Amino acid sequence: MDCAFCSVVAGDTRADIVLDEPDYVGFLDKRPVFKGHTLVVPREHVPTLLDLPPALHAGLVAVTQRVVSAVMTGLGAQGAFTAINTVVSQSVPHLHVHVVPRTKGDGLRGFFWPRTTYADAEEAAAYAAKLAGALAPPSPSA
Amino acid sequence: MDCAFCSVVAGDTRADIVLDEPDYVGFLDKRPVFKGHTLVVPREHVPTLLDLPPALHAGLVAVTQRVVSAVMTGLGAQGAFTAINTVVSQSVPHLHVHVVPRTKGDGLRGFFWPRTTYADAEEAAAYAAKLAGALAPPSPSA
Repeated sequence: MDCAFCSVVAGDTRADIVLDEPDYVGFLDKRPVFKGHTLVVPREHVPTLLDLPPALHAGLVAVTQRVVSAVMTGLGAQGAFTAINTVVSQSVPHLHVHVVPRTKGDGLRGFFWPRTTYADAEEAAAYAAKLAGALAPPSPSA
Repeated sequence: MDCAFCSVVAGDTRADIVLDEPDYVGFLDKRPVFKGHTLVVPREHVPTLLDLPPALHAGLVAVTQRVVSAVMTGLGAQGAFTAINTVVSQSVPHLHVHVVPRTKGDGLRGFFWPRTTYADAEEAAAYAAKLAGALAPPSPSA
């Protein structure tokens, strides 16, 4: 097995396990943004968010909610940052949700700066139209 | 209505709409990290990720997948960054998923640096144990 996270799930690579459940496994990131930074992964090998099958959709949100609550109640964090990289900056090609404990003034200004702006309203409208046009229809099962 | 995103959903505040569906609405962030940066919000007022009811869980993942695909196919992005702030850094107290188009070398090193490390294996194990101990049991409906 060449996947680093499948190896953690299988128990072949040591990790600090936070949760071990039928559909999802959570463990500490070895290089945390802040201590307690947890990665939540589907037990099965799912390369990216786009590949997550519908049967696992609701569970991803539920398990992420529980880990966010746990960093707040268990570590005293005031909030959390949750993030998923798809393809770019995705260091391991096995879907993982980062859950990072947050506290006001913790210095994580975040990747959210600097921001840019649209040249004008027409440019923004053109971007929205491109995205709307590229949007797949909702799944009939959704 | 005091909520900025409820106002967008209601059509009272102008926004560049990417999708408008029964459960979720997507629109451009006015100050994008990169152009095409979209916010996905539940139509109903849900303050934080922790408040999202189970009936909306699967839909959140499905709609996020579709927007990630749209920034890739519609804007030619190579990937995407998706993120949710809970409480800390959450500028509007109405749950919103950021979907940011990503391209290799786009300069978004991300909030993921600098990283820290655990002092030793015992410290890491203690964090994992605190989190595991604080974890709510899975919902019986999950």
